[in-house]
Amino acid sequence: MKHAGAWNMLMAAVCMALLGCLQAQELQGHVSVILLGATGDLARKYLWQGLFQLYLEEAGKSHSFRFHGTALTSTKQGQEVIAKVLESLSCPRDTAPGRCAELKAQFQQLSEYRRLKTPEDYLALSEDIEARVQREGLQEAGRIFYFSVPPFAYAEIARSINSSCRPGPGAWLRVVLEKPFGRDHRSAQQLATELGSFFQEEEMYRVDHYLGKQVVAQILPFRDQNRKALDGLWSRHRVERVEIVMKETVDAEGRTSFYEEYGVIGDVLQNHLTEILMLVAMELPLNISSSEAVLGHKLQAFRALRGLQRGSAVVGQYQAYRGQVRRELQKPDSFHSLTPTFAGILVHIDNLRWEGVPFILMSGKALDERVGYVRILFKDQAYCAQSEKRWVPAQSHCLPQQIIFYIGHGELGGPAVLVSRNLFRPSLPSAGWKEVEGQPGLRLFGRPLSDYYAYSPVREQDAYSILISHIFHRRKDSFITMDNLLASWVFWTPLLDSLAHEVPRLYPGGAENGHLLDFEFSGSHLSFSQPPLEQLVPGLDSAPMPSDFQVLRAKYRDSPLISAWPEELIARLAGDIEAAAVQAVRRFGQFHLALSGGSSPVALFQQLATGHYGFPWAHTHLWLVDERCVPLWDPESNFQGLQAHLLQHVRVPHYNVHPMPVRRRQRLCAEEDQGAQAYAEEISTLVTNGSFDLVLLGMGTDGHTASLFPQSPVGLDGKQLVVLTTSPSGPHRRMSLSLPAINRARKVAVLVMGRMKREIAMLVSRVGREPKKWPISGVLPDSGQLVWYMDYDAFLG
Amino acid sequence: MKHAGAWNMLMAAVCMALLGCLQAQELQGHVSVILLGATGDLARKYLWQGLFQLYLEEAGKSHSFRFHGTALTSTKQGQEVIAKVLESLSCPRDTAPGRCAELKAQFQQLSEYRRLKTPEDYLALSEDIEARVQREGLQEAGRIFYFSVPPFAYAEIARSINSSCRPGPGAWLRVVLEKPFGRDHRSAQQLATELGSFFQEEEMYRVDHYLGKQVVAQILPFRDQNRKALDGLWSRHRVERVEIVMKETVDAEGRTSFYEEYGVIGDVLQNHLTEILMLVAMELPLNISSSEAVLGHKLQAFRALRGLQRGSAVVGQYQAYRGQVRRELQKPDSFHSLTPTFAGILVHIDNLRWEGVPFILMSGKALDERVGYVRILFKDQAYCAQSEKRWVPAQSHCLPQQIIFYIGHGELGGPAVLVSRNLFRPSLPSAGWKEVEGQPGLRLFGRPLSDYYAYSPVREQDAYSILISHIFHRRKDSFITMDNLLASWVFWTPLLDSLAHEVPRLYPGGAENGHLLDFEFSGSHLSFSQPPLEQLVPGLDSAPMPSDFQVLRAKYRDSPLISAWPEELIARLAGDIEAAAVQAVRRFGQFHLALSGGSSPVALFQQLATGHYGFPWAHTHLWLVDERCVPLWDPESNFQGLQAHLLQHVRVPHYNVHPMPVRRRQRLCAEEDQGAQAYAEEISTLVTNGSFDLVLLGMGTDGHTASLFPQSPVGLDGKQLVVLTTSPSGPHRRMSLSLPAINRARKVAVLVMGRMKREIAMLVSRVGREPKKWPISGVLPDSGQLVWYMDYDAFLG
Repeated sequence: MKHAGAWNMLMAAVCMALLGCLQAQELQGHVSVILLGATGDLARKYLWQGLFQLYLEEAGKSHSFRFHGTALTSTKQGQEVIAKVLESLSCPRDTAPGRCAELKAQFQQLSEYRRLKTPEDYLALSEDIEARVQREGLQEAGRIFYFSVPPFAYAEIARSINSSCRPGPGAWLRVVLEKPFGRDHRSAQQLATELGSFFQEEEMYRVDHYLGKQVVAQILPFRDQNRKALDGLWSRHRVERVEIVMKETVDAEGRTSFYEEYGVIGDVLQNHLTEILMLVAMELPLNISSSEAVLGHKLQAFRALRGLQRGSAVVGQYQAYRGQVRRELQKPDSFHSLTPTFAGILVHIDNLRWEGVPFILMSGKALDERVGYVRILFKDQAYCAQSEKRWVPAQSHCLPQQIIFYIGHGELGGPAVLVSRNLFRPSLPSAGWKEVEGQPGLRLFGRPLSDYYAYSPVREQDAYSILISHIFHRRKDSFITMDNLLASWVFWTPLLDSLAHEVPRLYPGGAENGHLLDFEFSGSHLSFSQPPLEQLVPGLDSAPMPSDFQVLRAKYRDSPLISAWPEELIARLAGDIEAAAVQAVRRFGQFHLALSGGSSPVALFQQLATGHYGFPWAHTHLWLVDERCVPLWDPESNFQGLQAHLLQHVRVPHYNVHPMPVRRRQRLCAEEDQGAQAYAEEISTLVTNGSFDLVLLGMGTDGHTASLFPQSPVGLDGKQLVVLTTSPSGPHRRMSLSLPAINRARKVAVLVMGRMKREIAMLVSRVGREPKKWPISGVLPDSGQLVWYMDYDAFLG
Repeated sequence: MKHAGAWNMLMAAVCMALLGCLQAQELQGHVSVILLGATGDLARKYLWQGLFQLYLEEAGKSHSFRFHGTALTSTKQGQEVIAKVLESLSCPRDTAPGRCAELKAQFQQLSEYRRLKTPEDYLALSEDIEARVQREGLQEAGRIFYFSVPPFAYAEIARSINSSCRPGPGAWLRVVLEKPFGRDHRSAQQLATELGSFFQEEEMYRVDHYLGKQVVAQILPFRDQNRKALDGLWSRHRVERVEIVMKETVDAEGRTSFYEEYGVIGDVLQNHLTEILMLVAMELPLNISSSEAVLGHKLQAFRALRGLQRGSAVVGQYQAYRGQVRRELQKPDSFHSLTPTFAGILVHIDNLRWEGVPFILMSGKALDERVGYVRILFKDQAYCAQSEKRWVPAQSHCLPQQIIFYIGHGELGGPAVLVSRNLFRPSLPSAGWKEVEGQPGLRLFGRPLSDYYAYSPVREQDAYSILISHIFHRRKDSFITMDNLLASWVFWTPLLDSLAHEVPRLYPGGAENGHLLDFEFSGSHLSFSQPPLEQLVPGLDSAPMPSDFQVLRAKYRDSPLISAWPEELIARLAGDIEAAAVQAVRRFGQFHLALSGGSSPVALFQQLATGHYGFPWAHTHLWLVDERCVPLWDPESNFQGLQAHLLQHVRVPHYNVHPMPVRRRQRLCAEEDQGAQAYAEEISTLVTNGSFDLVLLGMGTDGHTASLFPQSPVGLDGKQLVVLTTSPSGPHRRMSLSLPAINRARKVAVLVMGRMKREIAMLVSRVGREPKKWPISGVLPDSGQLVWYMDYDAFLG
């Protein structure tokens, strides 16, 4: 497509040189472009210029155009603004001044301003277009509506377009939307549903203008054209880390009303940097010009993202921000904003290609330089036999190897693609890219510029011009589909939620920041390199912050209770399990651990999988506390959760893993298959006295535990170790350890998390042993130990 | 122990200062030290000095000593040599000259030379010792025999000591042996057995003098004293790589007769560098002064070493070596030595602590500098938010973090322990270690010396002095136990075998080497960074080298045959399996692969585990072709091999792995358990038409395949998919796919490797389809494809 684009530009240039060329070609249809908010900032700065470019490139070929700038302003005022904008348009660099004036005049003639406010206005516009098409004997090809308006206006405009301004049959409709697309998953979903009631998904083009930046748009073509060289490089085997960075020197002054709502994550990371991340990380389709394939692979990459936790981020706020917010939003002096203006995020991608490779996303305002880049640093896998002082830089494989997509600004001053010379000589389309000229003394990423093969675009093009051309050419892969958008919000929303009460580190701004914002990672955890020096937001010390709490120890139902914020609680529980495992293995040579399903243990599994490499997995037997009667590979299966979040990451021997035999023949949990008896037999054979070393339980809001529900006719007493039970919620059929089996354990840990559990936790704290009503109240190991692990939400409410 | 040692030294010094102190203490017994080969090089240079040191340190405390230098030389000649040696001994630096003369005179009086040749000589020595002990009213504590003689003399001396020179009951015997301890596993084992017939293992002290080097001896104490700081650093989570290096500038001139036998691997890597590797990699015992714990943990680390392959090494030979060998060994001009004088080795340790961390071992002669070091480079896990030009070196976490055990020589000029200042301030025993003084301009490992906390020994001590003291104190962990020695040879021997015919890269020597010897790794494969420029050993081009062969394609029993050297063959087979897997998953969503046990597939499993990350494991089902009737965790179980070499490294979902149910109730392969039927049922349920996508078979020297042996009454025809069979060799009971089940497969691959298979391969190539005689001849898929994979040894003999 890149080639095709270049060829079209060339043909357009040829046409422009031949007099009358524009008229000579046969027209395939008429296109109306309606620019909504045509007098606004974005429109004046970029969009009109983009439309002019579109006209220059396409009008000569097969379509005729008309451009309707619209707004709510009165016609006269609007016309004046537009006239001024059209006058200031610029032609391509090599156009002669006379020719430029001519082209601008043509474009001005095809452009008009009109006020667009009521549904009637839309209807009138539509009728005008139809009338003109008919009058001029043209065929209508389609209409492009470019929404350069604030999101709150979307719904009304969309309704009017849908009801009064759709083109007739045979012609297409494209609506172009600018971010923000929501502030979290819920609001994005809402917006999507709303717009979805007016437009088909294929009619919508959601703009992330970073996808139009030349170097960003070059990422996939670069990967494609250098497939052979990158084949052995583009994976965890060779990539040391990836940095995706957008640093700004400006601050949010004048934009705080927007910024207070979105912060740096909503403004930059959720969209621009995430899109770039996907372009780097996704599997490369065989045919990168297939939008469908590109989008499909992108979604696949989204699914492999490891969930973000509070520990995945460090956040900061430049010192002056608070004052700016107070001034601009008329807040009292006591107002403290927690909105981050700086964020560093550590992303992991849990697939075989990228497992373990840190992707660092970073953006901030009021930093020491303006620059954007993607830096792929390769692992140093060489050993140089000579003393370092004898290394020849151009030949040595012991010097850094990197590929950098330099998006713009910074010390280089413009977009470029850089590849270390000790890596390979990259291939870039020679039509659009040229070698960067030497700049003596310039060092980038630790090396002199001369250490890189460096290419920059022959002609710098604005992102919007490129995107407007892509809209016209239906290149959907340059836009954000709804699936893509929601996938991104699914990824970011939990982090935004968990950061909601986090106090960002204050930074002075500019070069003054020193090393204050440096951060480092350990496992999946990110933290500032420098410890905090002082109480950073003095006014806030009354509000309790998670870090102010120590892990709390108390009693609950006469047993030890450990309470903390979720992450500390999980860390503590994981530590206790590891200690029990080490002790059991030391004493008995093996450790029998029975685990529950559900969502709370997922975080525990992840913690165990990533943070406890001393865990004696080779000697650990894993058992299930309960199971749903679904196939083991069903997403609802407890075993599947264990598989995905724990087993895939640690080395438990196959024969030490004991899924419940819910399917022995063809039917699930058939009584006659005797699955429960078989599991009981397996336990009796392998576990001394049937006493698990540790049983991990949860507690339901109805007081159930394992899959033992209130009023259960089985499993609360008697000799059976394993029983088939019925759940009030689906899937109804379950297999479960019985209370007697649980109470034989050496240690039972009950994990209770979340505000939802508050009420039952209160209730159960007061009742006696009444397993028939509240099965959890029947948990009391015969000779073992019971420990409750509750987070503050469940325990303190 | 370090502390205790320092205290003893101090006490000895105090004693020396007090007149008559030596005599004042009560004696606990008399020790005889017999230095065999007392007139040799090593003895003159190091050992006498070490014995003098021992005398100075210990004589004042509780033992009396006598030192017997022995050799085959005549008494007169020997006495002259010894007298000269004793005269040249030096006292500790701070001893006054007069006092030194006095001490030397005491030592000389306690030392004698005697010829020791015949068993009678040994008997006489023993009688002399006993007589003297009795005469002086002493108690004999023990005898130390230090073997400073060539290994061929060991057996004779050992026999004589054992038969004629053991001390009486109640006194101990210690024999000290110098390497080489064999040239490979077989010879080491032989030597061990031989010596084992004369001495108890606890009586033997095998010296690796590197373990006595101050910095090497400091590795475990350093790890112990800095446990807290290292706890989070000392694992794959933080360590980027470990380099263990011994570079020499000298060449092998004058030693080629030794060098031709041992090469750089036998001379340096198998012993010195391997021992250091263990000190770095082993789990740290709680009590590092327990020799038993240290040795136990060391052995455990040996067991975790991943096997070396030909691809784990690069080897070189300095250009002048060949000529030196011809001269010194009187070889003709046509003689070409393949002995490596340079080797780079990539070691991986497959445990949870070190998995994936490259340990690079490197040593060579005629290099550009003389230096020895262990360098632990930590992962760069920081992101610095400021532009690089604003980094403050002392604070920035983005600069390299390393710990270096600098063994000696090099630019620093002596032993030292270095820790990057941005890492932590290490604790070293202040008695023995002092901070290194600044050396402006000196850069080490990419950073100025001032970037490190650097410590060097207060008093440089020779390794032999330290080891002699450790022998006396029974510190067995400073020596090589037989288990340790054999474990090391088990590790190195396969590499030595596979390098036997490898042509080393020639290098000019010294700084001239340029980047010629630089190497790099990819996965577990090592290669020189620069491709070879020319035929390096011109005279050798007639001998076929593995790399000269292309993979050979031909026919065998009318089916395609692929033949190559083992590594190429395995690589090809792995590639073909991956291709089949990708194709099957694309077409059917899953891939059913049935695998055989045995030793040939192990290399295949390793290849698949480490080299094929694009393999669709998540959609692959693994089945067993056959199984031995042993528990699945038995080392003899085929499944256990699959588990250890493949399953532990890839992510196959638990429920996609199908071990054969050899134990359903308590007995193995009981007919009434119907395990074979159950497996057949499982196949029928999950595998369409029971047709595996690929079945991998082997071929036994008797023509058996799977566990279908000649004359088998079952499994050669009929409807059964799985059968119980009997093997002529143990374990006799087997479970196996039947020939009909195998022949249903879409593709069958038969892997045949090794010279042992030559005869049967020849035979089977000529016979018809006679499965009763040669079950392998019955393999012919009904509608699938059969491919033979044979290495040249099996195919060409």
